[in-house]
Amino acid sequence: MVSAADVLRARPAVERVARRTPVLPSQTLSERAGGTVLLKAESLQRTGSFKIRGTAATLAALGDDAAGGVVCGSAGNHAQALAAAARAAGVPCDVIMQAGAPIAKAEGAEALGATVLLEGADVEESLVLARERAAARGMTFVHPFDDPEVIAGQGTLGLELLEDVPDLARVIVPVGGGGLVGGIAVAVKAVRPQVEVVGVQVEGFAAVAASLEAGHAVDVDPALSIADGIAVKRPGELTLELIGRHVDGMASVAEDDVAEAMVLLLEKAKLVVEGAGAVGVAALLDELVEPAPTGSTVVVLSGGNVDAGLLASVARRHETEVGRRLALLTRMPDRPGNLARLLDLVARAGANLVEVQHVREGIDLHVRETAVQVVLETRGPGHADAVLAAIAAAGYEARVLR
Amino acid sequence: MVSAADVLRARPAVERVARRTPVLPSQTLSERAGGTVLLKAESLQRTGSFKIRGTAATLAALGDDAAGGVVCGSAGNHAQALAAAARAAGVPCDVIMQAGAPIAKAEGAEALGATVLLEGADVEESLVLARERAAARGMTFVHPFDDPEVIAGQGTLGLELLEDVPDLARVIVPVGGGGLVGGIAVAVKAVRPQVEVVGVQVEGFAAVAASLEAGHAVDVDPALSIADGIAVKRPGELTLELIGRHVDGMASVAEDDVAEAMVLLLEKAKLVVEGAGAVGVAALLDELVEPAPTGSTVVVLSGGNVDAGLLASVARRHETEVGRRLALLTRMPDRPGNLARLLDLVARAGANLVEVQHVREGIDLHVRETAVQVVLETRGPGHADAVLAAIAAAGYEARVLR
Repeated sequence: MVSAADVLRARPAVERVARRTPVLPSQTLSERAGGTVLLKAESLQRTGSFKIRGTAATLAALGDDAAGGVVCGSAGNHAQALAAAARAAGVPCDVIMQAGAPIAKAEGAEALGATVLLEGADVEESLVLARERAAARGMTFVHPFDDPEVIAGQGTLGLELLEDVPDLARVIVPVGGGGLVGGIAVAVKAVRPQVEVVGVQVEGFAAVAASLEAGHAVDVDPALSIADGIAVKRPGELTLELIGRHVDGMASVAEDDVAEAMVLLLEKAKLVVEGAGAVGVAALLDELVEPAPTGSTVVVLSGGNVDAGLLASVARRHETEVGRRLALLTRMPDRPGNLARLLDLVARAGANLVEVQHVREGIDLHVRETAVQVVLETRGPGHADAVLAAIAAAGYEARVLR
Repeated sequence: MVSAADVLRARPAVERVARRTPVLPSQTLSERAGGTVLLKAESLQRTGSFKIRGTAATLAALGDDAAGGVVCGSAGNHAQALAAAARAAGVPCDVIMQAGAPIAKAEGAEALGATVLLEGADVEESLVLARERAAARGMTFVHPFDDPEVIAGQGTLGLELLEDVPDLARVIVPVGGGGLVGGIAVAVKAVRPQVEVVGVQVEGFAAVAASLEAGHAVDVDPALSIADGIAVKRPGELTLELIGRHVDGMASVAEDDVAEAMVLLLEKAKLVVEGAGAVGVAALLDELVEPAPTGSTVVVLSGGNVDAGLLASVARRHETEVGRRLALLTRMPDRPGNLARLLDLVARAGANLVEVQHVREGIDLHVRETAVQVVLETRGPGHADAVLAAIAAAGYEARVLR
């Protein structure tokens, strides 16, 4: 069992490699959730996630035992973190990532000097392959969460919260394997047992809740998730015991709500947070977890490793949902000038033209008719309605596509 | 003329309303630029930009004189900042933004209780309209930059740098009207005159450089810029004098480089920074400004107010440029199964299918031939080449679209 003393002992090694990340107030979230909400921006951590705390602690504890090198299997964040810690300690590092891991994470580990192998269908398969590789090559296997040194390292984030947030009342923590929430809970509860620690998983991977109910670690069926960093099918034995003992509650959030939380963090908090890192904000917005009635509630943003492509998709989808992006199908007589007149109308209504496309098949058109699909940027739902009204007033028939 | 004493005097009022934003190390930028580069993340400031410093200082200096309310014309950031400072001081606030200002900025000012009027073709016209409104309604006009209290307020950012970066050697600051760079230069040089201050403008709005050359404030022709926050046609009289006296150099960066800097900040620093806020990073990447040979170079990220839609466009464009997004036009015999075979090929090559579209017009096709436009996500240029080779090996003719 990991104790608060282990966390304190891990701290100097963590501080040599990791940063102390800022705690940022969020007016938007505080107002929406109805309480004082602060963000622990661990997305600004070295290597882009909290994982460097655990690997730095582990490498320090291993000392010369790690001279033959270290190896891990990981969704990506642990891999980058082990690579950075190994480089700092001057030992070789191999990482096995499941095929299809986010590009940014694979590139990140390579840039830190690790040998990256894309193998295995999921995190669990990568773990098995990594254990085999360690045994075959005399390297040390470093588990992403079910390891006392790793958990102690993650717990140092809790020590920072105790120091930086004097009125700390509640901490909301993303949960995959459970190393972060376990470490934070141990560290925080030892000093201020009245602080509540709540874990948040994503619906498709609510393995901790299922395991707590079963009384032992059980698997959930694998699913696709935007929160790849916590897409863990089965919690650890050590972490499950810590969670059962110290964590006050668990929640799980829907995929779509994670995407909306990512966009809110982009637009309001100006932070890039990956899906796994945004589940705590999703839980608050969705009212699955409430802020503490008095004192400060800290949401841990555990990581920020997202490809620009995924960010673009998430932002784009949001624009459509909030009515800032309007896709229309209009039909009009196939005569010269009709499209020009429509586009002029749209411009005068103050909307931005993004895309125009003629549609000639798949819909029921008169032979002298043509259909045009138009994508517009508007200032919001009210403006979108005004644009639609202007189009209708000019005699065009327009159908909104969703 | 604004002095360091004015900045010190402004500080308490600024600290009551604004945050002390973090200074974050950037390993990626340090390695690329070849020096120790730190980021002053003023994008995490309240209201999303440094402007709150200047408006907080101004409202405090006005005291009861502002009881009738304040009014400003602004590209958006000053508007949000004045709204927040006015709300804190309990006085009404009207803001005039040019038509077409970013949605996030207009919404931000409204959410802070301001009355927002979208009028004027550019910042300068909004300023004229705001002055008229102030005179007509007995309100106080607050200039976005050419005002000693505003400049003194912005200078408080310099005081924080002096305290937080003991080996400060160079500061790189975005320049629009010149209030921020003027204030920082005055504050920093008074204490450590050897610290260099460099200003960065965007090419379309290099009004300060032109004015310094002319010896007085001159206009530049208006242009469209991704850096709307510094799209100012003419610097102030006060700010120009301060820049001439205290700023060591000026640079201007290209639009495309600003977009690339925004993406680097998203992907590597995990920060959402608007175009105006990213020009310093663009100048470093473009080698227009070098980091100091010894000591730390701080790049000021002056703001983070960007619409999700613009972020999506910038990220998307980047994906295409770095070869992670591949658009192909292939022609094939119009027989059942040919497209399915191509898509299967693409999937087996490990690329993600984003879009498929039949193209039947505008290109020279045999009557029994069809053309298909395919958009793919790849892991990078090497992978894109491998996918293309697999397509060619299977007998398809594919043209890459750019």
